[in-house]
Amino acid sequence: MITSADNDKLKTIRKLRQKHWREKLGVFVAEGEDLVNAAERAGWEPEFVLRAGRDVDPGLLDGVSALGSGTRVIGVYEQRWSEPGGRLMVWLYAVEDPGNVGTVIRSAHGLCDGPVVLGPGCADPYSSKAVRASMGSVFARPPARAAFHELPGWRIALDAHAEQDVRGMELGDRAVVCAGAERRGLPGEVLAAADAVARIPLRADGPDSLNVAMAATVALYEVGNRMAAHA
Amino acid sequence: MITSADNDKLKTIRKLRQKHWREKLGVFVAEGEDLVNAAERAGWEPEFVLRAGRDVDPGLLDGVSALGSGTRVIGVYEQRWSEPGGRLMVWLYAVEDPGNVGTVIRSAHGLCDGPVVLGPGCADPYSSKAVRASMGSVFARPPARAAFHELPGWRIALDAHAEQDVRGMELGDRAVVCAGAERRGLPGEVLAAADAVARIPLRADGPDSLNVAMAATVALYEVGNRMAAHA
Repeated sequence: MITSADNDKLKTIRKLRQKHWREKLGVFVAEGEDLVNAAERAGWEPEFVLRAGRDVDPGLLDGVSALGSGTRVIGVYEQRWSEPGGRLMVWLYAVEDPGNVGTVIRSAHGLCDGPVVLGPGCADPYSSKAVRASMGSVFARPPARAAFHELPGWRIALDAHAEQDVRGMELGDRAVVCAGAERRGLPGEVLAAADAVARIPLRADGPDSLNVAMAATVALYEVGNRMAAHA
Repeated sequence: MITSADNDKLKTIRKLRQKHWREKLGVFVAEGEDLVNAAERAGWEPEFVLRAGRDVDPGLLDGVSALGSGTRVIGVYEQRWSEPGGRLMVWLYAVEDPGNVGTVIRSAHGLCDGPVVLGPGCADPYSSKAVRASMGSVFARPPARAAFHELPGWRIALDAHAEQDVRGMELGDRAVVCAGAERRGLPGEVLAAADAVARIPLRADGPDSLNVAMAATVALYEVGNRMAAHA
């Protein structure tokens, strides 16, 4: 039973709040029963797991928690990275909000067979906030990393100003939904190189665009349905 | 030019971080050019607006900011509440995360003609985080408040365990998409009283459910498209 805040495992957990340390050590923290159970269901062996009152004094575990008081379990796991693949996947560009990255990982786990592929400038999917937003889907479907030109398949760039909407779009056998940052969207060179550019149909009196996680999710839903109908 | 932190307007802004004060005063804060511009576009007269360097010392404005340093403008507005209405709207039950509430307000503004109707236990749509997540849609389409039994139209309850999926569902002339809290979903009495219970179709090897804002958005997209096709 760990009874000192000087313990190496507790120090590691504290360090892993920083991206710098997550990259250096190649591991990350999952906090709470739901996430630790999701890791187990997906067959991930933890580096270590600390349970309050069994492995560690509860107050000390709270002290390294990113959530605040009441944490009962924290697990530390090795980061895994997939390769782009599957019939349908999603590519994110400069999505800086870790909650959005984690939420899209969860949506993709439900709506397509490929991973979320992170392009330049995205939030770390292994940050505490992204892991939590993924609700454990990060274990079932680890993210990939790739530049736009490395993506296989028919690349559909989402753009609020596109003429075509996602319901009318031509589709290939394999597709990648590409979604860009809040406000700036995808860069011009991606729009120019994409196989299709399409928008989510929104009301004329509506907002300019949806939140990026919403747009990616709706596009995965639509494209996935249409691919299934044509399969 | 305000040069003292004791100024009444600055004190009001500080108080409005608390729901208690927002309810008591019936006003709320919008921070940043984008939101203040969205209010203006929607024709909302502010109670007051403070611009850094013009109306107030920049350091003092930063001091009352919910975002931290660099704030250039803060506006205070009277809260407005819509009535349930329109052909398609969304009802939220116990959605406690203000980011989710604000994001659904933005999605509804883009995908349906009715407001977001808040049922019991939802986060305050006029909290700073919800207003920000709405990206200004809270001005264009103020939320409503109602209990489930007060909702007009065909009430579609989203439930991850429903047999029917949203693509096959019968629709009325008017519809309300009803979405419940993360984890717990909608309560049994709502599922029992709803006109239809449906799920978002997810992969068998996927997560149990989508994030509530994603589920509501996908359902609005699907139901809206189907209603337009049958109109």
